[in-house]
Amino acid sequence: MAFAVLCHMKNILVLGAGRSTSALISYLVKHAVDNDWHITVADFSKAAAEERIGKSIRATAIGFNTDTINENKIIFDNTDVVISMLPAAFHPIVAKVCLEKKKHLLTASYVSDDMKHFDGEAKALGLLFLNECGLDPGIDHMSAMQVINKIKAMGGQLFSFESFTGGLIAPETEPQNPWRYKFTWNPRNVVLAGQGTAKYLQEGMLKYIPYQQIFQRTTPISVPGLDQYEGYANRDSLKYVDVYGIRECKTVLRGTLRNKGYCNAWNIFVQLGCCDDTYTLESVGEMRHRDFISSFLDSQFSSEEEGVQTICKRFNLSPEGEEIKRLRWSGLFSDEKIGLTTGTPAQVLEHILKKKWKLKPGDKDFIVMWHRFKYLLNGKEKEIQAWLSTTGEDETQTAMAKTVGLPLAIACKLLLQNKIKSRGVVIPVIPEIYDPILHELKLFGIELKEREFI
Amino acid sequence: MAFAVLCHMKNILVLGAGRSTSALISYLVKHAVDNDWHITVADFSKAAAEERIGKSIRATAIGFNTDTINENKIIFDNTDVVISMLPAAFHPIVAKVCLEKKKHLLTASYVSDDMKHFDGEAKALGLLFLNECGLDPGIDHMSAMQVINKIKAMGGQLFSFESFTGGLIAPETEPQNPWRYKFTWNPRNVVLAGQGTAKYLQEGMLKYIPYQQIFQRTTPISVPGLDQYEGYANRDSLKYVDVYGIRECKTVLRGTLRNKGYCNAWNIFVQLGCCDDTYTLESVGEMRHRDFISSFLDSQFSSEEEGVQTICKRFNLSPEGEEIKRLRWSGLFSDEKIGLTTGTPAQVLEHILKKKWKLKPGDKDFIVMWHRFKYLLNGKEKEIQAWLSTTGEDETQTAMAKTVGLPLAIACKLLLQNKIKSRGVVIPVIPEIYDPILHELKLFGIELKEREFI
Repeated sequence: MAFAVLCHMKNILVLGAGRSTSALISYLVKHAVDNDWHITVADFSKAAAEERIGKSIRATAIGFNTDTINENKIIFDNTDVVISMLPAAFHPIVAKVCLEKKKHLLTASYVSDDMKHFDGEAKALGLLFLNECGLDPGIDHMSAMQVINKIKAMGGQLFSFESFTGGLIAPETEPQNPWRYKFTWNPRNVVLAGQGTAKYLQEGMLKYIPYQQIFQRTTPISVPGLDQYEGYANRDSLKYVDVYGIRECKTVLRGTLRNKGYCNAWNIFVQLGCCDDTYTLESVGEMRHRDFISSFLDSQFSSEEEGVQTICKRFNLSPEGEEIKRLRWSGLFSDEKIGLTTGTPAQVLEHILKKKWKLKPGDKDFIVMWHRFKYLLNGKEKEIQAWLSTTGEDETQTAMAKTVGLPLAIACKLLLQNKIKSRGVVIPVIPEIYDPILHELKLFGIELKEREFI
Repeated sequence: MAFAVLCHMKNILVLGAGRSTSALISYLVKHAVDNDWHITVADFSKAAAEERIGKSIRATAIGFNTDTINENKIIFDNTDVVISMLPAAFHPIVAKVCLEKKKHLLTASYVSDDMKHFDGEAKALGLLFLNECGLDPGIDHMSAMQVINKIKAMGGQLFSFESFTGGLIAPETEPQNPWRYKFTWNPRNVVLAGQGTAKYLQEGMLKYIPYQQIFQRTTPISVPGLDQYEGYANRDSLKYVDVYGIRECKTVLRGTLRNKGYCNAWNIFVQLGCCDDTYTLESVGEMRHRDFISSFLDSQFSSEEEGVQTICKRFNLSPEGEEIKRLRWSGLFSDEKIGLTTGTPAQVLEHILKKKWKLKPGDKDFIVMWHRFKYLLNGKEKEIQAWLSTTGEDETQTAMAKTVGLPLAIACKLLLQNKIKSRGVVIPVIPEIYDPILHELKLFGIELKEREFI
């Protein structure tokens, strides 16, 4: 009998204790006793893992190097489910170990082609490989599917679906920051955003937006009761047409939401070539911020004003305009040393932006998600908008960490309670997954509002 | 003794009988008897190879598939030198066979990293692997080196070097063509031109131009006695700083020359994303020219005028302006079927442009090369400009084929006459190579003019 009792305890292995894991790990630790769980948090920095778990006797922190996953497979042995918060590139390696050790796997990352290939094997082994179960992708899928299925149930015919999500900063945070933006997730991904061609569907026609246009061809977004925003298209809006079961839909556009003016200013970086990650700049060690900018212009400038004038002339801007205000605020024309010895343009830009875009104590982030559904019902055009906003508590308990981590944590609980029957590589577009997750998220103040138009 | 006599005959293997090989093969065939040569021309199309060699008994045409070079190495056996006119991607494969069979190799292509690695082995085997021995690269190197060495010999100190070359059409050819351009070499390379980041040196500072800027940041070029042109920067101007021995030079810019207005119009293709070669468009089979353009815009247009209006609005252009004139002339707004079933944007654009940009019987192409050297002599700033222009005879005996093929043909002759001692992977920046080649090119009317300024 002792054996049977022991078997009731479930083990959860969380890989990574970075920026987005605070809410996830807090939730798991908090529910560990009630559910008879033990949580192991593995991170390159054992100290970071220790900080996340606090003093819980239901959790263990271990040091763990992603470069040697295959030599340290032993940490997977006694677990029931693995939650990988590692950078997406590691997921295929983790997934292979999960197959070998027969463990479920949960991630908040996009399903890569590699991940897709594990579907058959995972199914055959009775394993759930649930991906895209964070915020975006994650809550966006779940909330969109709930509305789409409601429209279908009414007999409505969806003809347009737009969906935008953004991680911003709260209105009260750093009012002087003209970008209304700070890094609340991987800064590298923010700098590389939009590279490659975006594809979407517009009134039945396939449309392509190359990188050089992506921050110019933005969509204005007005969120009821909130603000005016703007959105740029994500890389591939089309892959969800089949996943969502909306083949009849003639306009499908998914994108990233920013405060007004962000895209125009960011576009200057894109046009200059500052976000290029394909080659290494020379002499970065001697460069000042303004030298970085002048590398991409055909003149040298020796003062902030000369830099401003050159950019204004190049892009036909006003020195008093919104774009220049943002570049000035980020110190792009200053004579401060960059402080790196080498780097691609993207790495240098990230490093410069971090100086002002790092969350400071007390800073609060702010998530905005917005969907618009247009459909025909009894021959009439109808429209539903659904939106969500949520504010972080501070620079650690961010809205980003909450909205990315809680869906995963709840999915983990549901799985360990045998409430998810799906197996193989899936994303949360299935009612048995999204209904209970969306329901529980409401307890955390994460809830979409919905309004019908026309 | 019979054996010794036989040994005097030298065999030349020419791989490829395409667009740029007419002058090369004509020269070799013409000089075959005098020099006791036999020429073998190998091409995928044996008929094309036969057409090139005409009725010469000193030449043989053979069919040859580049996909099976390694199965057909036997064709290398009896040759003394291989001239590869295949696309540059094949040169490493050809070079490997040349090493194995101990044959010299001549090409008109840029030295790739792969090619560079063969240097040691080629030297050890006593083989010459001469590359970049066409027009650009080729005559540009040779003529620049001649002037640079002259300046050095005078005791001058070079501080600025600019060099631009372009393959255009003759002023009398197709006067109604507003681009003043047709395809006179590989059309694919024209469509992909400028992709990647251009690097150059300006007043001692490294400058970077990303693709989205390359056709906007052009250099005006006024060629004495000719016309006003414009040039866009080539990918890497810096790699010749050491090769030319001009470390002291503070401005180094190499580029491609076009007629005025070309770059502004081409920039529209770049900005729209029409030159992207990284993904395949959907439904190309059903597309008309104007559908291709509208794929990159957020509206659909049903007439030429609607297309013109959309582009004008997007890029702030006048419908009567030069850019629209060029796009209209190329039929970009027409409802003609594209005529391909599949393709990347770059492949589709190439296909559409070919309809108007293919040389027609009687069309003459026109090469322009221009260098500017600025130097200090006895404390004074001096300037030399050197330039070349040459016109093709017709649509086959093009100036492009002459200027690409003759330097190779002459190099081949010099090599077989034991007049080139250099071995290993080299480019024609060595006097023993460029002096006799530039000298003989004068007989064909290919000669740089030179003028001193200030």
